[in-house]
Amino acid sequence: MIPTPTVLLTAEQVEQIHQASLEILAQVGVKVHNAKARKLFAAHGCSVESESNGVKFPPSMVEDLIQAIPPTVTLHGRDPQYDRTLPDDGPLFSTGSSAPNVIDRETGRERRSLSVDIAQIAYLINELPGYDVFTIATTADDAPAGQFTLSRVYPALRHCLKPIIVSAPDLDEAPALVRFGGLVAGSEAAYRQRPFITFASSPLISPLTLDDEGTETYIWLVEQQMPCFPVSAPIAGLTAPVSLLGALAVCNAEFLTMGVLTQAVRRGAPLIYAVTPAVVDMRTGAFASGAIESGMFMMGCAQMARYYHVPSAGWIGQTNAKVNDAQSGFETGMLSLAAMLAGTDLLATGGLLDALMAFDFGKAVTDNEIAQMLKRLKRGYAPGASELALDVIAAVGPGGAYIDTDHTWERMKTTLLIPEVADRDNRHAWQEKGALDAHTRTMQQAQTILEDAHPPVFSPELDEQIRKTFPGIVAGQLSE
Amino acid sequence: MIPTPTVLLTAEQVEQIHQASLEILAQVGVKVHNAKARKLFAAHGCSVESESNGVKFPPSMVEDLIQAIPPTVTLHGRDPQYDRTLPDDGPLFSTGSSAPNVIDRETGRERRSLSVDIAQIAYLINELPGYDVFTIATTADDAPAGQFTLSRVYPALRHCLKPIIVSAPDLDEAPALVRFGGLVAGSEAAYRQRPFITFASSPLISPLTLDDEGTETYIWLVEQQMPCFPVSAPIAGLTAPVSLLGALAVCNAEFLTMGVLTQAVRRGAPLIYAVTPAVVDMRTGAFASGAIESGMFMMGCAQMARYYHVPSAGWIGQTNAKVNDAQSGFETGMLSLAAMLAGTDLLATGGLLDALMAFDFGKAVTDNEIAQMLKRLKRGYAPGASELALDVIAAVGPGGAYIDTDHTWERMKTTLLIPEVADRDNRHAWQEKGALDAHTRTMQQAQTILEDAHPPVFSPELDEQIRKTFPGIVAGQLSE
Repeated sequence: MIPTPTVLLTAEQVEQIHQASLEILAQVGVKVHNAKARKLFAAHGCSVESESNGVKFPPSMVEDLIQAIPPTVTLHGRDPQYDRTLPDDGPLFSTGSSAPNVIDRETGRERRSLSVDIAQIAYLINELPGYDVFTIATTADDAPAGQFTLSRVYPALRHCLKPIIVSAPDLDEAPALVRFGGLVAGSEAAYRQRPFITFASSPLISPLTLDDEGTETYIWLVEQQMPCFPVSAPIAGLTAPVSLLGALAVCNAEFLTMGVLTQAVRRGAPLIYAVTPAVVDMRTGAFASGAIESGMFMMGCAQMARYYHVPSAGWIGQTNAKVNDAQSGFETGMLSLAAMLAGTDLLATGGLLDALMAFDFGKAVTDNEIAQMLKRLKRGYAPGASELALDVIAAVGPGGAYIDTDHTWERMKTTLLIPEVADRDNRHAWQEKGALDAHTRTMQQAQTILEDAHPPVFSPELDEQIRKTFPGIVAGQLSE
Repeated sequence: MIPTPTVLLTAEQVEQIHQASLEILAQVGVKVHNAKARKLFAAHGCSVESESNGVKFPPSMVEDLIQAIPPTVTLHGRDPQYDRTLPDDGPLFSTGSSAPNVIDRETGRERRSLSVDIAQIAYLINELPGYDVFTIATTADDAPAGQFTLSRVYPALRHCLKPIIVSAPDLDEAPALVRFGGLVAGSEAAYRQRPFITFASSPLISPLTLDDEGTETYIWLVEQQMPCFPVSAPIAGLTAPVSLLGALAVCNAEFLTMGVLTQAVRRGAPLIYAVTPAVVDMRTGAFASGAIESGMFMMGCAQMARYYHVPSAGWIGQTNAKVNDAQSGFETGMLSLAAMLAGTDLLATGGLLDALMAFDFGKAVTDNEIAQMLKRLKRGYAPGASELALDVIAAVGPGGAYIDTDHTWERMKTTLLIPEVADRDNRHAWQEKGALDAHTRTMQQAQTILEDAHPPVFSPELDEQIRKTFPGIVAGQLSE
């Protein structure tokens, strides 16, 4: 394993960010549009200004409550073999989330994504070994009223046994999701023991604002002991200072706000330091999630998370490219690598183009390989005298060959990743095979996986029960 | 600046590699095919076995001599404004070197590269701000006999004012290059004061072998005080153990061998810890320079270089992709980022496809942006109270906007890199502009630079003098 994470901040600067965040919370405060949250904050010693809904936080109270956040978080899969605990099992790799669109596999054109796309993506992610978690990558445009989240979770769980993350539902729909989990698990008690749907919540509106409905739902989910973590999405230059230290101070103040709220609702409730960090493109005002500074922002967040002993997650490596091209490759590869080396525990990176606007099947396959490269790097140099191989070096001698030694044959599969996307043929062999670029090859790989699909479907009885319990629910099928 | 480099090895492992290398040199030894080198080694206390040419090194002698390597190396440009000193000015970014082929800009097909290609590439690299150094990226297939290296250096120096690195010439041609430098500088004395051609030498044949001719030339160049550094190119699984610790031990023993030779020739001569690290692809025996393990190998080398207080260089991020696609992007981006974070001082990364087999103009432009991203990341978070921006955060308040603050306008150009390759338009705007992928856009950018060329040509008098001094030399022109 890599001995220590990469740091961008000195220990002194980490302390400075912490103190600055406390100062922001004490003197600038947070605007809290939800009454229940204001009441909770007040009960814990915050001052609440009734006219502006401004809440100010005593530093000692913040420091006390955030110490109650547990240092680990477990994400459950429907199949327990896929359970993963942060940070110990990290880095975990996941899809990015909630793109409204998909690049159609047949036409290559962007269109609104449907529940059937989610079924296909879920199965693909289930089969790709680089992914640990399926964060539901798109919305479902065919969701019936009141079933916006159910229409995403049903096709996802029906085709993927790995842990599922989905954006938190409306409060109206939230109880239905617990009921749904209970049906799938066999009983609500069984589901509550191993809740395999984790919610990513967005009560935060940068800078320093909690909305009404999202906050209400968040509180309900924490009360219900449903796994849930809020995501902060500040944009340096728009909703946070353009300077990275200033942006991190705002972002960290937002994390502390949610830490306080979470522990005020239920002391000891788990939390993840989760961020979609970005900077603005000053020429156009665009959300530059693929910018190197977005990666640097994430690296700072990972360092702060470690300071608080809280697992970290980042929607990171989200390229601005519109196609799975060189830009997509270097933005996703560089930003996710930077985040991983800085110690980010969960990387919600895979599959999306155009700053989280569209899912692309070829990109998801490409990112599966990036994930495996990140994990290989994280494993580091294998230690030990037999790895140093002094006897082998002596036996081979100057000018000798290592290819046919036992040492090589024993270690080649554990030392070297065998890539499926990266082509290592010489040009002639590559031409003989059709001179295909990486995107074309990954689309073929996706096609092969989806054609061969023997999806881990629900039993007909379970499907029937789900459709009876939730009338009008989407089909949840892999294909029509 | 980033506070500390990323490490893959513990301090104990670094020491272990050093000791293992000493043991290899003392007990396994190096096969030295050059008589002058054997004599130098023997004069410094090595045992030389006359039949096998095997040389074994006393550890104390190795440790004594390598302490004489200076901690810095300056690369001179023809224009002194481009002089760069390692490690202080690092990370320096350069092209990769010595591809036999070029992807023709007109046809898109691979063909042998010519001196006119070098002229064009030299001008392109001169104009791209991410590049600090032009390592001559291709060979010149039209080189006359005896002018293999002159045919590369002439078009390169004629169109690029930045430091030039080129593979060391044959011993026959070497004096001509000093004479050539003298002509360009005005006098040989002036050239010797600021020698703007740096030679990358390959006397090393892994594992643990020094050839005859390359070693002879290397000794001559060091004697002549011409800037020169040897490059080690072990392939884990073929010419070094497949285990990374073992591969690093062999590579480090090779560095120490060259350290001893260099200091035996001229104590105090500068040296760079330069490597083309790679692993084998076990399926095909291919040179997998784009593998993540090649990046990890480089990270270990950078760490060893720092242990010896010697600047490091890597031919790193050399993709196996045949086109400038997603694979090219993620392999080049990830490996160069890993190497940079590990503290590699000179990254010979840009422009090459297919494991150093072909230069591609679009890839060179793409890599220029990767270089700028690496340098931005290396700069890290700007420190200081005004960067923390607590007054701005207070003034903007919860729910406010940062875009129109003075703080944002003052800092946007220093905080945020303005990319020219990465497209951040929304999909509609991108489609309106032709829906071009990154490679197509970078080829257009290369075209624009080469069309607008007002190359920094030699004076007609200098050209005439060069052509008179070196009859039959290639034209050196930017275009026919």
